[in-house]
Amino acid sequence: MRKLFPLLVLSLLLSSNAAVAEKAAERGVNSERLMLAGDRPDPSITRDGDTYYMVHSSFEYAPGLLIYRSKDLVRWEPLVNALHRYVGSVYAPDIVKHNGRWYIYFPVVTPAHTTNMVVWADSPEGPWSEPVDLQIGGIDPGHAVDAEGNRYLLMSNGYLVPLAADGLSATGPARKVYDGWEFPKEWDVEGFCLEGPKIRKIGKYYYMLTAEGGTAGPPTSHMVVVARAERLTGPWENSPYNPLVHTYSPDERWCSKGHGTLIDTPDGQWYVVYHAYERGFYTLGRQTLIEPVAMTEDGWPAAVARPAKKQPAKQETAASFSDDFSTDRTGTQWQFAGEYDPQRARRENRTLVMQARGNDPSDACPMLFVTGDHAYEMEVEAQCAPEAVAGLVLFYNPKLYTGIGLDKGRLAIHVLGRAESFDVQLPRHVWFRLRNDRHVVSFWYSPDGRNWTKADKSCETSGYHHNMAGEFLSLRPGIYAAGYGEVVFRNFKYKTL
Amino acid sequence: MRKLFPLLVLSLLLSSNAAVAEKAAERGVNSERLMLAGDRPDPSITRDGDTYYMVHSSFEYAPGLLIYRSKDLVRWEPLVNALHRYVGSVYAPDIVKHNGRWYIYFPVVTPAHTTNMVVWADSPEGPWSEPVDLQIGGIDPGHAVDAEGNRYLLMSNGYLVPLAADGLSATGPARKVYDGWEFPKEWDVEGFCLEGPKIRKIGKYYYMLTAEGGTAGPPTSHMVVVARAERLTGPWENSPYNPLVHTYSPDERWCSKGHGTLIDTPDGQWYVVYHAYERGFYTLGRQTLIEPVAMTEDGWPAAVARPAKKQPAKQETAASFSDDFSTDRTGTQWQFAGEYDPQRARRENRTLVMQARGNDPSDACPMLFVTGDHAYEMEVEAQCAPEAVAGLVLFYNPKLYTGIGLDKGRLAIHVLGRAESFDVQLPRHVWFRLRNDRHVVSFWYSPDGRNWTKADKSCETSGYHHNMAGEFLSLRPGIYAAGYGEVVFRNFKYKTL
Repeated sequence: MRKLFPLLVLSLLLSSNAAVAEKAAERGVNSERLMLAGDRPDPSITRDGDTYYMVHSSFEYAPGLLIYRSKDLVRWEPLVNALHRYVGSVYAPDIVKHNGRWYIYFPVVTPAHTTNMVVWADSPEGPWSEPVDLQIGGIDPGHAVDAEGNRYLLMSNGYLVPLAADGLSATGPARKVYDGWEFPKEWDVEGFCLEGPKIRKIGKYYYMLTAEGGTAGPPTSHMVVVARAERLTGPWENSPYNPLVHTYSPDERWCSKGHGTLIDTPDGQWYVVYHAYERGFYTLGRQTLIEPVAMTEDGWPAAVARPAKKQPAKQETAASFSDDFSTDRTGTQWQFAGEYDPQRARRENRTLVMQARGNDPSDACPMLFVTGDHAYEMEVEAQCAPEAVAGLVLFYNPKLYTGIGLDKGRLAIHVLGRAESFDVQLPRHVWFRLRNDRHVVSFWYSPDGRNWTKADKSCETSGYHHNMAGEFLSLRPGIYAAGYGEVVFRNFKYKTL
Repeated sequence: MRKLFPLLVLSLLLSSNAAVAEKAAERGVNSERLMLAGDRPDPSITRDGDTYYMVHSSFEYAPGLLIYRSKDLVRWEPLVNALHRYVGSVYAPDIVKHNGRWYIYFPVVTPAHTTNMVVWADSPEGPWSEPVDLQIGGIDPGHAVDAEGNRYLLMSNGYLVPLAADGLSATGPARKVYDGWEFPKEWDVEGFCLEGPKIRKIGKYYYMLTAEGGTAGPPTSHMVVVARAERLTGPWENSPYNPLVHTYSPDERWCSKGHGTLIDTPDGQWYVVYHAYERGFYTLGRQTLIEPVAMTEDGWPAAVARPAKKQPAKQETAASFSDDFSTDRTGTQWQFAGEYDPQRARRENRTLVMQARGNDPSDACPMLFVTGDHAYEMEVEAQCAPEAVAGLVLFYNPKLYTGIGLDKGRLAIHVLGRAESFDVQLPRHVWFRLRNDRHVVSFWYSPDGRNWTKADKSCETSGYHHNMAGEFLSLRPGIYAAGYGEVVFRNFKYKTL
């Protein structure tokens, strides 16, 4: 932390927002920081001693609820998945430690219904329980405990639901306790959308951070607002410094900033962790950011960072996604879209053997991963059973993807979820390459991994994102196997351009 | 090198070219110039004495084939529509004068079939004939006349079709005469897509400009290439200076430049007129550009302009689209999407009385116009029959639009072609306002045109374009009337922001 914010002393109590901002500028704390790149939305973060744990919405990707661990809020290690089944679309979770046990509360949305579930474990490393259906409506549960030790969930739209002592069932009806903060009517937002409550007790007050304005749509849509109360049932008093986090102009680097959790360091510095889209790269999904906050004299967390305008010349990127399949990265890197069958793919002698599913990428439940890169290239070697097909894909959802693959022995290029078959014969043992250079996507194929031919078709994918296709997803790179039989993948290579 | 830096090499090697470039630079012609803003794709231009005439693809909008007239290649006056019926999607036309009579050849694409038609007139002002179906396949007819006075159409994919002397029927089968120019394999394009042939006889040669690379997709997809021949049947020799027009980098202001026609001034200066998407504003469709070309010593048109990188701080915009309905601007400003029924709308006492169609904007065949503005606001007053509804819309196609309107007496906001009904009662006499500020779209309503309320929902439309939805269209502002009965519109107001 000291390397990033060398002169930062946030234990200072400052009297006003403007003064806080001025002080921060003097200290060089001039903007929000990208903490976890790529599609890591709806972060929930907590600290246990000197260790931080964070979890995000999983949406359609499984296994889900990947827990990240960090000692410094800079380096994050993927630890373990707390959800090993596909249960529907997993919205904003909350990770908490309570009486020595760990819980993750999360909403589950399917076409048929919306509910909320919980998994628990005695340690963040797991093993995590099977999901328990709490059978309560609303979304975005935030866990809280009152002065008497009773447990509750704060839900979207300001509802409070009492929980049993073990936290595994609801014990009464939801009750409205908070109406949100009324933001200026002239702001361009998606709607009121009071959601993502996260509770933190500081002194005599419960502080509740909620998201408003909608998570996507206009770049100025989202925000984090603060309210406090002495009791969970209220009355809740809105902060005079609201919003704590917000994108004020479409010219900022980070769009639709919102959905925050307060976190403090062992030495008493305060931060807010939230998510945002990167301007021009909505395709990457909502990325996890962090910025310092100051506690004011009148006891409110207040913004001190100044928003960044420009994208850095050099991208922050660290992870290597190349995979020779010598170890199992399921869950920590790879996820399946729309299902999870642990029996479907196995690692053998530095290969990944995957059972085919469906007919093409749309129903093949492809195996994908999250990247934060603006430009990258990937390759894979695939050996297909006689009636299997395979390829590389950038997948948003079953209707919206692009990719290259086999199609009945011929080259197929997929654009906007539709296949175009080319008059090019491909062998069943074939190599594919896909390049995504700032939304310009191009394709290559090779019979031997050495002699490459560029396909005659490229496409442009800047619009493959939530504002066009909904569902809060991202355009994720990966591989697919469809048709019948098995596909043997080797040497998945990835590089940042 | 030559392909990457055409101006540099031309300056070194070609004295005439360099001189022209120098002249152009002196005159301030140092890059392509936006000649007709907004969705004016596939331009075909010709000159008759000192007067230029230009026509564009109409696609789904009718009445179509709006002829523009200019004396200076700067100020363009909408003259008359040459097509008064909806016949299907009208692709790239060609306007020619032959033996004192005027013709526009154009492709018509429907879900059932593709054909080519012609309309003719004794003057560009009309009256223009009913369309004549030539019953030939392919698209993008380009008219040409051989040394013996025989008439032909050059078609997409290099086919030549003989025409009767009156130009109103084909007299033989299509014959392949040209294979196109092979562009570098490493370019990111949509495909080969040899189309849009335009023929110009200069000296002993026929010069054919064709489009290649696909009109959308990657910013570097499109181009104009040149070939020449002494006979229309070939052999066609490709220009060593190809491509004449091309976007070499996604960082250029104009993307997918291509589909050009050569035009000369009365004093012998040469230009190429073509279209391109503006970077960041694919929603506006393909806009008409012009740039000077030099005739080289070896008799080829060659590029001399340097591509612009930046968008100007101030937009070029001139037209006033505000309409008090005191005059009939059907065709010159307003077009209907997907149909044209002249009986549907009438002007009365500074009102537009429109018969309702369909249930909502998707099937209401809204009345739209073309703008080139990055940011604008529009308002209209609407008085609805008891079972009619109306509103303002930004319409791409029946599946993709946004807008504000009435829905069963309540406020409805349409996003991504789906209506969201709000708990806001609206009177049948109501005012609407819609703002599109660089893709952030916001909505207002008023019971009296003075007291306005902003709707709680905005949206973001940067992806409402061909690369997401196909069909070669644009996101056009306008009004719609749906349900049953009539809607009386007054005081359509438009301003550039």
